[in-house]
Amino acid sequence: MSNIPYKFYLDEKDLPKSWYNVRADMKVKPAPLLHPGTGAALKAEDLMPIFAEELCRQEVNDTDKYIEIPDEVQNFYKMCRPSPLVRAYYLEKALDTPAKIYYKFEGNNTSGSHKLNSAIAQAYYAKKQGLKGLTTETGAGQWGTALSMACAYFGLDLKVYMVKCSYEQKPYRRNVMETYGANVIPSPSDTTEVGRQMLAEFPGSKGSLGTAISEAVEVATHTEGYRYALGSVLNQVLLHQSIIGLEAKAAMEKLDVYPDIVIGCAGGGSNLGGIMASFMEDKLLGKTHPYFIAVEPSSCPSLTRGKFVYDFCDTGHVCPLAKMYTLGNGFMPSPDHAGGLRFHGMSGIISQLYHDGYIDEARAVDQTKVFEAATLFARTEGTLPAPESSHAIRAAIDEALKCKETGEAKTILFNLTGTGYFDLAAYDAYNKGILSSYVPTDEDLQKGFDYIPKFDFLKDK
Amino acid sequence: MSNIPYKFYLDEKDLPKSWYNVRADMKVKPAPLLHPGTGAALKAEDLMPIFAEELCRQEVNDTDKYIEIPDEVQNFYKMCRPSPLVRAYYLEKALDTPAKIYYKFEGNNTSGSHKLNSAIAQAYYAKKQGLKGLTTETGAGQWGTALSMACAYFGLDLKVYMVKCSYEQKPYRRNVMETYGANVIPSPSDTTEVGRQMLAEFPGSKGSLGTAISEAVEVATHTEGYRYALGSVLNQVLLHQSIIGLEAKAAMEKLDVYPDIVIGCAGGGSNLGGIMASFMEDKLLGKTHPYFIAVEPSSCPSLTRGKFVYDFCDTGHVCPLAKMYTLGNGFMPSPDHAGGLRFHGMSGIISQLYHDGYIDEARAVDQTKVFEAATLFARTEGTLPAPESSHAIRAAIDEALKCKETGEAKTILFNLTGTGYFDLAAYDAYNKGILSSYVPTDEDLQKGFDYIPKFDFLKDK
Repeated sequence: MSNIPYKFYLDEKDLPKSWYNVRADMKVKPAPLLHPGTGAALKAEDLMPIFAEELCRQEVNDTDKYIEIPDEVQNFYKMCRPSPLVRAYYLEKALDTPAKIYYKFEGNNTSGSHKLNSAIAQAYYAKKQGLKGLTTETGAGQWGTALSMACAYFGLDLKVYMVKCSYEQKPYRRNVMETYGANVIPSPSDTTEVGRQMLAEFPGSKGSLGTAISEAVEVATHTEGYRYALGSVLNQVLLHQSIIGLEAKAAMEKLDVYPDIVIGCAGGGSNLGGIMASFMEDKLLGKTHPYFIAVEPSSCPSLTRGKFVYDFCDTGHVCPLAKMYTLGNGFMPSPDHAGGLRFHGMSGIISQLYHDGYIDEARAVDQTKVFEAATLFARTEGTLPAPESSHAIRAAIDEALKCKETGEAKTILFNLTGTGYFDLAAYDAYNKGILSSYVPTDEDLQKGFDYIPKFDFLKDK
Repeated sequence: MSNIPYKFYLDEKDLPKSWYNVRADMKVKPAPLLHPGTGAALKAEDLMPIFAEELCRQEVNDTDKYIEIPDEVQNFYKMCRPSPLVRAYYLEKALDTPAKIYYKFEGNNTSGSHKLNSAIAQAYYAKKQGLKGLTTETGAGQWGTALSMACAYFGLDLKVYMVKCSYEQKPYRRNVMETYGANVIPSPSDTTEVGRQMLAEFPGSKGSLGTAISEAVEVATHTEGYRYALGSVLNQVLLHQSIIGLEAKAAMEKLDVYPDIVIGCAGGGSNLGGIMASFMEDKLLGKTHPYFIAVEPSSCPSLTRGKFVYDFCDTGHVCPLAKMYTLGNGFMPSPDHAGGLRFHGMSGIISQLYHDGYIDEARAVDQTKVFEAATLFARTEGTLPAPESSHAIRAAIDEALKCKETGEAKTILFNLTGTGYFDLAAYDAYNKGILSSYVPTDEDLQKGFDYIPKFDFLKDK
């Protein structure tokens, strides 16, 4: 081993005190959210019935480069942060590569993921505003767990609409949330208009993320003292997740290294949006030129095969329109697709940066190749990774193998955002050789694209 | 917050380079293992058909105070260590106590527990000896997972006999082990004499830890190039687990604090045996007098209600006799008892230290009170603890509440050895109010005591 330690932790005193708002450095800002009825660009005030007030201000703020992390949030971060910057010596050895692989390990907390970084911020601002509680939806369960922990910490009530098939297949996820005091409701439910309509139309429905979002938003906007919280896609979420990249860069500076390649998986954008933070700042300012790779599942290929247009964020059409790479709000990934990263769209920030070439490459990977990488990683580096994060592992391994061919000793950084402890059914399927490799056909994609709205006011946008 | 950080990590360069062998400092050494046929004290050579050679030497070594940690093991430790020493500020605040509570958090790795500390050492010595593989048993699954990870790292084959009821109820645990390449066999099985006998006698048997041990030992001793590995009770295991206490003391020295009270849960002894290490050294040498508390479940109360005598370690009577606090090798804790800590006996080292008064107190706690403490801990400190570790949390909370009454600001240290991510069925039972509080009657215990052997050679021992 070199003089670089296997794991490096920043001292508490060196932890970032502000989040980094990448929009301040973007020449072309992400397009604003639009009102689906009028086409008007939404201001902070327009969002306040949905989100806590300060979060609405953060959502539309594309000028302040740094936003102070409140003391209460910094205190909570001390429980789960700093996360280590790990040099993947054992993976490098197994690959016999000259590449130097680093990963920021964000998943070593009870939520099993990086979602806690934004959950605690969203809960804090809700508490500060004097709200009584929050609503949200969850699919795989990482976000719901994170928000349950955050709400328990601040004494907020929480209603989680959990996609019914997950509610039934992942009772343990539900049990964790309940242990933290959350009220977990299978969606579609009879507690909302949207849910009742869905149940009337499709009595045996096992639910979808889109319906769960619509239910959670309905309850938040119709209940005194409640607001809605979302774990990805939004600008505010990428702001909070910037803590990952800020810490990664601070740690790398202490070790006197800098990445040639930065890799994150891309579902809604919170993973890549988190790790890229300060490195993207360097690139936007022309200081350095790291190569950014967004990795997505080939079964849900928003960046590689989607369109960069305005679309609804939810299937129930209760949310605003966002300009993003999208497969269309009616797109449904194959049920055989394991794990998260099943959102039809993509963060507006990530979309704009990709469109403008600051994110250099989007790469779609097959899920059996993802689990192959995950298994190698588990056996060499010890940690069983989440399927989502394993997309980034796949790309990191492939880049390291390229280095082996060329003899280059590139420095690769990727974001290990989660652990796979609640995803073992997928590992079991992979171990048994029955994991599917389904990729949507162009015809499948066209069905999704047909859902993209064609309002008059969207022409030329 | 004071100037003590929430989490403190030692630098890699400050990590212990040797394990601490507490037996070297004990005036009265733990009694030797005895051959059940002859009553002869077993030497290292006698154990070599069962365990790897170097481990046999460690098992009987009660003179060398420090034993060097091999480089390869130190390298592996860098993946999961140092574990943080955490100041439980948020729990203290919730309790409104003047006590200062610290915990060493050993569970933040894929095995979910401290078991990795010994697993990697045992795998290393097996590999070094040129063995082909290991066998072991697992109940709750933490040990089996840890040994799977260790064997994957060294390229050793591993056969895990998993108690059949766990095999069926905890498929995810099995999937993790399989992902690390282990061969997991439900016990009783038709792969061994012991298993076939058990199946013939009790066709629908769901197995027991005792039978699984006997099967694993049978395979190890009858297969060329294989040995057996055990995750608790043994002297070698406590030796390896001393890394916990060594690191804890080194970290506390850096922070200029010292514990008044040291708390560990006690099942087979690896938890308490780990955290006590260097603090027990201080006490044995008369330098300091920390108060040690062993916490056990009231449903399996070996220290508080057992006998300090020679007994078999397994129900199949294929293992040697050990002098320990025991409930009798036929004792079966109630099936309603959640989690581990169900072993009928106790580490010989812990037993002797308790008998001689160096471990000041053994305390049996009720499992609903344990889950009450676990839930408070999860909601305040963020991490969902394992049921086993939560016994120590219960005692730490109770000591902190005593401080609240007396106004004393005692420093309390406990060992948080595991996370509860695979124990959510028990949490669910607690949340629903259906967790049992069963405590064995004296008659129940007598049935277990009846199994304690009464060989002539055991008189006066």
